Amino acid sequence: MAKQRVITLLTDFGTSDHYVAAMKGVMLAVMPEATLVDITHELPPGDILAGAFVLAQALPHFPPGTVHCVVVDPTVGTDRRALAAVYGGQTVVFPDNGVITLVNRSRPLEAIAVVRDERYFLSSGLSSTFHGRDLFAPVAAHLAAGLGVERLGPQPENITLLELPEPQRRGDAEVLGQVLHVDRFGNLISNIPATMLGAPVESDRPCEVFCGDRPAGPLRPTYAVVERGQPLALINSMGLVEVAVNGGSAAEHFGAGVGAEIRVRLA
Amino acid sequence: MAKQRVITLLTDFGTSDHYVAAMKGVMLAVMPEATLVDITHELPPGDILAGAFVLAQALPHFPPGTVHCVVVDPTVGTDRRALAAVYGGQTVVFPDNGVITLVNRSRPLEAIAVVRDERYFLSSGLSSTFHGRDLFAPVAAHLAAGLGVERLGPQPENITLLELPEPQRRGDAEVLGQVLHVDRFGNLISNIPATMLGAPVESDRPCEVFCGDRPAGPLRPTYAVVERGQPLALINSMGLVEVAVNGGSAAEHFGAGVGAEIRVRLA
Amino acid sequence: MAKQRVITLLTDFGTSDHYVAAMKGVMLAVMPEATLVDITHELPPGDILAGAFVLAQALPHFPPGTVHCVVVDPTVGTDRRALAAVYGGQTVVFPDNGVITLVNRSRPLEAIAVVRDERYFLSSGLSSTFHGRDLFAPVAAHLAAGLGVERLGPQPENITLLELPEPQRRGDAEVLGQVLHVDRFGNLISNIPATMLGAPVESDRPCEVFCGDRPAGPLRPTYAVVERGQPLALINSMGLVEVAVNGGSAAEHFGAGVGAEIRVRLA
Repeated sequence: MAKQRVITLLTDFGTSDHYVAAMKGVMLAVMPEATLVDITHELPPGDILAGAFVLAQALPHFPPGTVHCVVVDPTVGTDRRALAAVYGGQTVVFPDNGVITLVNRSRPLEAIAVVRDERYFLSSGLSSTFHGRDLFAPVAAHLAAGLGVERLGPQPENITLLELPEPQRRGDAEVLGQVLHVDRFGNLISNIPATMLGAPVESDRPCEVFCGDRPAGPLRPTYAVVERGQPLALINSMGLVEVAVNGGSAAEHFGAGVGAEIRVRLA
Repeated sequence: MAKQRVITLLTDFGTSDHYVAAMKGVMLAVMPEATLVDITHELPPGDILAGAFVLAQALPHFPPGTVHCVVVDPTVGTDRRALAAVYGGQTVVFPDNGVITLVNRSRPLEAIAVVRDERYFLSSGLSSTFHGRDLFAPVAAHLAAGLGVERLGPQPENITLLELPEPQRRGDAEVLGQVLHVDRFGNLISNIPATMLGAPVESDRPCEVFCGDRPAGPLRPTYAVVERGQPLALINSMGLVEVAVNGGSAAEHFGAGVGAEIRVRLA
Repeated sequence: MAKQRVITLLTDFGTSDHYVAAMKGVMLAVMPEATLVDITHELPPGDILAGAFVLAQALPHFPPGTVHCVVVDPTVGTDRRALAAVYGGQTVVFPDNGVITLVNRSRPLEAIAVVRDERYFLSSGLSSTFHGRDLFAPVAAHLAAGLGVERLGPQPENITLLELPEPQRRGDAEVLGQVLHVDRFGNLISNIPATMLGAPVESDRPCEVFCGDRPAGPLRPTYAVVERGQPLALINSMGLVEVAVNGGSAAEHFGAGVGAEIRVRLA
């Protein structure tokens, strides 16, 4: 296998401490020619669902062979496993806590292993609190350098997956979903795919979107078609129904967050 | 043209979501050998002036051939154009909303095109809300790989520029300007260039700087020449009059922000 | 000497302005093939101790030949010196204000020089407020490209070091230390090394850790062995006694910060 070069990092470590840099140092010590890309380090501490969402949205845009090193790991040091898996030509190394859920739904699993072979860990051994540095970083770098996941350990019998609410169609007239993610702008991103609304989705089609009981209007083509400060709904760049406020925060406007009800009433 | 390697990213996307990573994945898929540099992703959402300022201050320090991918784009999905322009050997790809204003003032325009050729867009097509990923990122990567801007589309007849207040000389005794940018330290950076004060500017020269009606003292050589917590004025590293507080925030001290009046009274 | 490739950046500049990007542009202009790694730019403004801590924790994980460019520099533009020093095969460029203290304690000093030769500065000369861009960045890039530190200037007669409180053993029964750093999770990281507690340190060993007068329990193996929201103490990934809260902030729980007393009472 040719050497792969891109390694991404996705953590809840923040960027004010040495944690992320320690991981990068370890990676570069193993594979000096790696191209390191931060997905984010600003996941809310321990928020596995947020990690699952951001990973699933970022991954499809990376080139084949990319290795994603995911460390949102609230149970580090317990008996939770570390896994490495190949999905559609890209590899993810991650704690087996559900953070892989949304990638696992959307891409074919091609190979998977429990990360167990200590030869690929940091040579000074495993601390009980920072497997990002001691395990995930060096393993990711070895994978990026061409190591096959099957070399890391045995195949697991199962994967831990989050149980997420599914959007539901109520007859022909309504689709009921939930806010899955709130982004930096305060956009409320639901779990309702455009494909559930009947294709093709046209802008200003005769439907009405609600956040809880409050209307957000029909589906619009983009933010700036309503006045600044006004709410709207649209199919976003991920193909999901999103409730937004032009130039503002829908999370604030509607007082809503992850788990809030989003409803599409079709005409 | 030889392949150019550095691509910078300047957005208001924040770093907590997948948006920036998606752009980088797209860029690396087009040009795996690119060196990606973040200018910032922390522009206040939709703040075109802040983007214009940061871009103009960062760009001159990059090597020739650098491509800057600028996405502060509050009217994404409307009929605003995307432009690509070469200024003094560096290329900028940006929405035509004024964010190029300060670069356009300070560097020679060598080539410019409307970005229209869809062969250089993301192959899955253009969403209406995330042209950073679908247009600006892949176009920047193609430019970095050597594509000439004239290949992207026709030359525009005009460029959208911000109308910014200009510093004004009042007789020989006073220069009146405005705060153009507040940096992370709370420094109040004005639009008054040192060159307007008569050259050479000497430290502790007999002049007095005011923020609104409140004095900030004469021009000092650097922050630490006044006591901690004390205000001061200086010519900063951008060659602009700046009002600061040693070890503190002038924005807080003076209760001032972008647009506040800065006045230099010459002796 | 072969060309070295990794340059890290550690500053208090934040990431919302052009400051860090200007440094990176300067570095890449000097050495286009450098791999740039951010340690952090979120040091509290002017916080030399925080810089010293983060640098000392990150540095050991980088490969030999790495150059670290450290700019926490509250007295920029005064007569404070800039130094370049080689510690255990890695090079640090830094203002001589104590930020090197903890690296200097833990690694052998192999070479050191006052940075004085202006040929390695930004060609446009030295501003009085942004030596990160004008001096530290280009010098770091020249060092990464193979320049020996002895070429930069004369050897200094001394180095400025912070006077830090040392953990103290009180008889056989107690070790008294202080909080040295509070990380992004609110973990209280003390200056007490595990080695002061007698080796090997076993989890759940019969000792009791206190933050001020309030108990944090015995040393635990990891965070998740106590209930969420409960405090605990452990030996962290840096080999230091740390007081934490599982899934929460010990800084908030104990109302404690840098300098707070941490006490280990041995059984």
